[in-house]
Amino acid sequence: MEQKWKTAITKIEPNKVALRGIPIDELMGRLSFGQVVYLALRGELPSEAQGRLMDAILVSSVDHGATPPSALAARTVASGGAPLTTAVAAGIMAINRHHGGAIEGCMQVLLEAVQRQRERGQDAVTAAAELLAEYRAQKKRIPGYGHRVHTDDPRAVRLFALAEELGIAGDYVKMARALRSAMHEALGRDLPLNVDGAIATVLCEMGFPPELGNGLFAISRTVGLVAHVHEEQTRERPMRRIHPTAHEYDGPEERTLAGGG
Amino acid sequence: MEQKWKTAITKIEPNKVALRGIPIDELMGRLSFGQVVYLALRGELPSEAQGRLMDAILVSSVDHGATPPSALAARTVASGGAPLTTAVAAGIMAINRHHGGAIEGCMQVLLEAVQRQRERGQDAVTAAAELLAEYRAQKKRIPGYGHRVHTDDPRAVRLFALAEELGIAGDYVKMARALRSAMHEALGRDLPLNVDGAIATVLCEMGFPPELGNGLFAISRTVGLVAHVHEEQTRERPMRRIHPTAHEYDGPEERTLAGGG
Amino acid sequence: MEQKWKTAITKIEPNKVALRGIPIDELMGRLSFGQVVYLALRGELPSEAQGRLMDAILVSSVDHGATPPSALAARTVASGGAPLTTAVAAGIMAINRHHGGAIEGCMQVLLEAVQRQRERGQDAVTAAAELLAEYRAQKKRIPGYGHRVHTDDPRAVRLFALAEELGIAGDYVKMARALRSAMHEALGRDLPLNVDGAIATVLCEMGFPPELGNGLFAISRTVGLVAHVHEEQTRERPMRRIHPTAHEYDGPEERTLAGGG
Amino acid sequence: MEQKWKTAITKIEPNKVALRGIPIDELMGRLSFGQVVYLALRGELPSEAQGRLMDAILVSSVDHGATPPSALAARTVASGGAPLTTAVAAGIMAINRHHGGAIEGCMQVLLEAVQRQRERGQDAVTAAAELLAEYRAQKKRIPGYGHRVHTDDPRAVRLFALAEELGIAGDYVKMARALRSAMHEALGRDLPLNVDGAIATVLCEMGFPPELGNGLFAISRTVGLVAHVHEEQTRERPMRRIHPTAHEYDGPEERTLAGGG
Repeated sequence: MEQKWKTAITKIEPNKVALRGIPIDELMGRLSFGQVVYLALRGELPSEAQGRLMDAILVSSVDHGATPPSALAARTVASGGAPLTTAVAAGIMAINRHHGGAIEGCMQVLLEAVQRQRERGQDAVTAAAELLAEYRAQKKRIPGYGHRVHTDDPRAVRLFALAEELGIAGDYVKMARALRSAMHEALGRDLPLNVDGAIATVLCEMGFPPELGNGLFAISRTVGLVAHVHEEQTRERPMRRIHPTAHEYDGPEERTLAGGG
Repeated sequence: MEQKWKTAITKIEPNKVALRGIPIDELMGRLSFGQVVYLALRGELPSEAQGRLMDAILVSSVDHGATPPSALAARTVASGGAPLTTAVAAGIMAINRHHGGAIEGCMQVLLEAVQRQRERGQDAVTAAAELLAEYRAQKKRIPGYGHRVHTDDPRAVRLFALAEELGIAGDYVKMARALRSAMHEALGRDLPLNVDGAIATVLCEMGFPPELGNGLFAISRTVGLVAHVHEEQTRERPMRRIHPTAHEYDGPEERTLAGGG
Repeated sequence: MEQKWKTAITKIEPNKVALRGIPIDELMGRLSFGQVVYLALRGELPSEAQGRLMDAILVSSVDHGATPPSALAARTVASGGAPLTTAVAAGIMAINRHHGGAIEGCMQVLLEAVQRQRERGQDAVTAAAELLAEYRAQKKRIPGYGHRVHTDDPRAVRLFALAEELGIAGDYVKMARALRSAMHEALGRDLPLNVDGAIATVLCEMGFPPELGNGLFAISRTVGLVAHVHEEQTRERPMRRIHPTAHEYDGPEERTLAGGG
Repeated sequence: MEQKWKTAITKIEPNKVALRGIPIDELMGRLSFGQVVYLALRGELPSEAQGRLMDAILVSSVDHGATPPSALAARTVASGGAPLTTAVAAGIMAINRHHGGAIEGCMQVLLEAVQRQRERGQDAVTAAAELLAEYRAQKKRIPGYGHRVHTDDPRAVRLFALAEELGIAGDYVKMARALRSAMHEALGRDLPLNVDGAIATVLCEMGFPPELGNGLFAISRTVGLVAHVHEEQTRERPMRRIHPTAHEYDGPEERTLAGGG
């Protein structure tokens, strides 16, 4: 154990903490948290557009109510008396292949599809149709489309609009749309991209590796989990039976951003 | 189990996801992730200044290298073969009373000190001296001062400068400084506020309850934990012996923000 | 970090693994798992009677169906796609002050009561009545009595019968009974000891420290959690809504030990 | 959510708790914890021999000192101030593919090898040689052989001796030995079965499914993890640097079972 092992994330020296080479105190007040997430995970500063998109990605998944396994696991663990961080951790452990995992799964499909399109010199529509046919023959699903609550996920719509507006939409956005059309044609059902699929698409545009999909989802959802655990700890009695769907919202009435702040 | 339980965080309806009353797609692209963290945890939109300070708080604790228990726990669990989210969760579980807990501890001291100051009509210096004397008589420590690596934590310095600049510094910043002076006088040693103490102070200024201290720290540090787990999974072999201090930084050379992006 | 830190649990040398001084291969086939749990946690071999009681303690809490927070947390995390060990860990995290914690809580009461009884030269009935009066004045509950499902917990009854039979019942069993009578008289309601209270009592008889209460409960319940997670993974679809009480048993019909093996 | 979901593990009724159909109070004092683990996971009572072997399996992996990732993760999380169950859970999360996972991996190899042997009517030696050749061609390793500390793992030796003595050794024990010989011949190195490989073999003899391998390992190792966390909490200061190998044993001197109890 004599040799030192290496890490490229943060350098610590007396009175200096530098993330990917840049002193953290210099980042504070100048970059948004989303921009710093990009820096921490990619090792480089984002462009202005990438930084704004990263904030939007993280905002999109911040919470999805009390029904997802992550919220229920966190509340259930809190209900036994665990400290806040333990309960939040249980929520994060529920994020895996079936919960949030569509981000990684959809990224892998999009990366494969665009690579094949480029190698074969095809257009997106042809490449999408071919890939879909192969997936169906192998009984493989394409993750990131359809949602059990939303017929047209407003977060996905907004993320694509932002990607267009910020000039980040490219081959992956085209492919994501081509796959939707191909599925519509093949299955006779229109399954719009859900928020996981939309995040997957823009993460591909920004060059993130698929295995960070769940990592970004976890960073975002930790916020909602802290809110759920704190609500459970301050509002509910210990050891209650937590019904997964029989709950209702009693927070602030619907309002617009303009009216609110 | 007939009655529905209540939650005031997020309302889900078909094609609508509203956090604290505001549709998430409306927040996306308009608010930074830090502003949305404030909204999620407080229930109200932050002012422009509060939003900027929240981003700075979250940036300040994003990572502190490979030595803290959270980073080591996350890497150790990853090294057994766990998925990324499981390993990150182990890191979050290491955040507790002794790791990150100084935020909550320091908030409680500051809240008590300022409340007493107000009740007794004292100035900050007198109130700080009295409180310190009582704490010392009861052999209680005041958390949030001093650091085992940094003699003057640059993140704490920056956070206070920002709080002043943004007009958020008030009684708690004064009290934090008065406590430092009182300890200097009583102990003969100058212990500047560390990053936990500085976060505690500005969270008091913004009205956060102390029990959310570890929650905010966890939200911030999850970013660093994702980076550490991903580095462990892509750069190291499984089941290695992870030395807690014999590692060295081999990332980008030191650079400034201007030069970087 | 030059000095070696110390551990008194297991010595590892090439071709030798000794738990508390005794080679594990020598323990195998000679001691029950319960006896080895005693050795691991107390540092000494149990007597024959203590070993049998330890097995009985561990058997008593092995599972309590699908309703406790630990089972629900484990199944919920499994339902997101986590590996078996991650899901089991979530279940263990749900064991805390309110779930299983009555063992530690009841041990502390019994230790305090018996110590006072001895110091004051009282009989158990007098000491119990005094302690109960003080607890009620301070609005403190005595944990380990009553159960939300069982009016007379058969596991508690059996554990006390075994403790008597094995010659382990002493002052703590007497005190546990005296407290029940005192509560009956003071509250007008008979609350028999539950399984947590009975475990607490016999652990006091065997000299365990209270802070190991949750540890023993976790060792025992891990078995049930493995069974629940395996059942969830092999029998249910991912991401299902897991109702906390609307489930029914469809395993083997009731049978006796004699008829079964 | 109207239909009730099903579970075949435990039936709870007022004053009755029945595991796989047998009242738990009837199991207490009559079966060892190992026998009940078998019942909980297989749904049937073990034979006398299977029950004794199950206790031996669980005893074999109860602890392996302070160096494995599970012990280090648990101690590291404890060191941040987490409660005992949270720290133990972190240890269990470290048990995965690379830590304990050799049980499942080795079971899959043995099941495949014996199935092929039976289908092809081969003897164990021929089947082992063929399978090894194929694995080497595909650069796949056979887990469960060799150990980084032990050249001949005494726990593995003992487990096989017990399996022979109890009449449980059969085709899988033969195959495990045939694979060792085949590897010796092919690689020129003798790699005896380690404890994971030996457990894998006897679990195959008893008909356990491979995916329970980590579950049984977790049940066993939870004992050691409770001991490590309790030692960390009672013997060490918070937030210490935990060196993964620079520790030494200072527990009871080596002793024999006879001399001890």
